[in-house]
Amino acid sequence: MKAGLQCWVARQMATFAPMYPQLIRMPRFKLTIEYAGTRYSGWQIQKNARTIQGEIDRAVRTVTGRKDFELYGSGRTDAGVHALAQAIHFDTNATRSEYSWVRGANSNLPDTVAVLWAGEVDAGFHARYSATGRHYHYVILNRPIRPTYLSRRVTWDYRLLDVAPMQKAARHLIGEHDFTSFRAAECQAQSPVRELRALEIKRHGEFVHIRAHANAFLQHMVRNIAGVLMTIGAGEKEPGWAKEVLAARDRAQGGITAAPDGLYLAEIEYPEHFKLPLLSRDVGLW
Amino acid sequence: MKAGLQCWVARQMATFAPMYPQLIRMPRFKLTIEYAGTRYSGWQIQKNARTIQGEIDRAVRTVTGRKDFELYGSGRTDAGVHALAQAIHFDTNATRSEYSWVRGANSNLPDTVAVLWAGEVDAGFHARYSATGRHYHYVILNRPIRPTYLSRRVTWDYRLLDVAPMQKAARHLIGEHDFTSFRAAECQAQSPVRELRALEIKRHGEFVHIRAHANAFLQHMVRNIAGVLMTIGAGEKEPGWAKEVLAARDRAQGGITAAPDGLYLAEIEYPEHFKLPLLSRDVGLW
Repeated sequence: MKAGLQCWVARQMATFAPMYPQLIRMPRFKLTIEYAGTRYSGWQIQKNARTIQGEIDRAVRTVTGRKDFELYGSGRTDAGVHALAQAIHFDTNATRSEYSWVRGANSNLPDTVAVLWAGEVDAGFHARYSATGRHYHYVILNRPIRPTYLSRRVTWDYRLLDVAPMQKAARHLIGEHDFTSFRAAECQAQSPVRELRALEIKRHGEFVHIRAHANAFLQHMVRNIAGVLMTIGAGEKEPGWAKEVLAARDRAQGGITAAPDGLYLAEIEYPEHFKLPLLSRDVGLW
Repeated sequence: MKAGLQCWVARQMATFAPMYPQLIRMPRFKLTIEYAGTRYSGWQIQKNARTIQGEIDRAVRTVTGRKDFELYGSGRTDAGVHALAQAIHFDTNATRSEYSWVRGANSNLPDTVAVLWAGEVDAGFHARYSATGRHYHYVILNRPIRPTYLSRRVTWDYRLLDVAPMQKAARHLIGEHDFTSFRAAECQAQSPVRELRALEIKRHGEFVHIRAHANAFLQHMVRNIAGVLMTIGAGEKEPGWAKEVLAARDRAQGGITAAPDGLYLAEIEYPEHFKLPLLSRDVGLW
């Protein structure tokens, strides 16, 4: 009888726990994920489209043998955009070692998606709402000939880019500003104000790297900034144009949205008290 | 009548010139080519297999509208091996500007193959026999988790590699030696002696780069050297093992052949009098 009761309680828990995670608290897990966004319709799960979140969801279901969880990402990435360290969390009663999470998920993921780290985190952690900063890298192959072995992993610009005016232009954008001019028309954020903490441009041989750090980014913000910087680097506009575009608060002034191919979500920052390992901001490549 | 004779001479030239390039000299062109070897059955043209040479051959035929040429490469690369600057030459009467060669060929090549440079060269130039040195890069992603956005572009080793013993081992291999122990069983070279001029190992974040420079390489030589160095870097053998393997002159002593994924043919050296531009030895990535 006692075993029967335990069994009944366990069944009720399994049924209702996912519906009331606040009441019956399940352990919370964070995963750090690296991926190539090429051939995916972006991060966000969709019907009738291949998405990164869809792949992760399927892999976690296979590892846990459960469907009673929901994945929360730090934010969406567009179709074709890559990640060196996307962050997600979910709650589950499935007990697996850190090694089993990583190993199990990776053996169920395609070649271009992998879990770098998995661990139980504080119940107060939220992949999106706990994030205090985001880092993006934008990688340009700057030469007359299109990429080959880095096809769809870098953005190609055949115009010779001079980084000095790009660096000068970047100084106009750093700080807390209304970034309406750098925001996609369909961006759903409530406020267009973001704090751009750093915007670095460096040349490494045939490559130009742009690194952006902000509290958060608006939709297409990095690609729109890259588009403006590349136009300035090509000598088609003066560095002061970046200031004008920003002041206009009008997307139509901002020129083209640079291709997604060279964009990497490089790191999500969380408060130190969550004691999370730092991954992938600088892996030695970009 | 005169026009008819000219026409006859032109027809005879078109028929016989390719058979006697030494007698009726056509202009000679060199192309420098970058490619990802993934999904190709290597460089060398083959029936019923997709090869890089096959792609180039098709593109040059399309640009010239002729079939009366033969491509000569600097050497073969194995299936899955990439090139930053493979060199080829061929003779043709088709007159195209340098720009037309590059642009025309690239618009007829797939995403992962491109002509970087094209130009007419001295009639004495031969892509293979004029070469005085070759450079290869071997790129290892050294971390617990497999690659994603660099899948098939780097070799993955999950064992932590210590570069200091690898560098120590490399010193035993530099110089003119009989490299039988590092040579594929099916290697067709007449002599196993090669002059290894440099063998550098460096860590860049999560990546370990091996750069090798020799007068020429035997089949699988770089991959077999990489295999030995990685075993030493992982602490499974002492640096002195490289010397033992070399001295054994026996492929069976040399351990595994490292994967082709991380191997890049980086440069072919030619004598200065050919006045060729230096391409791709250091592009800022690997």
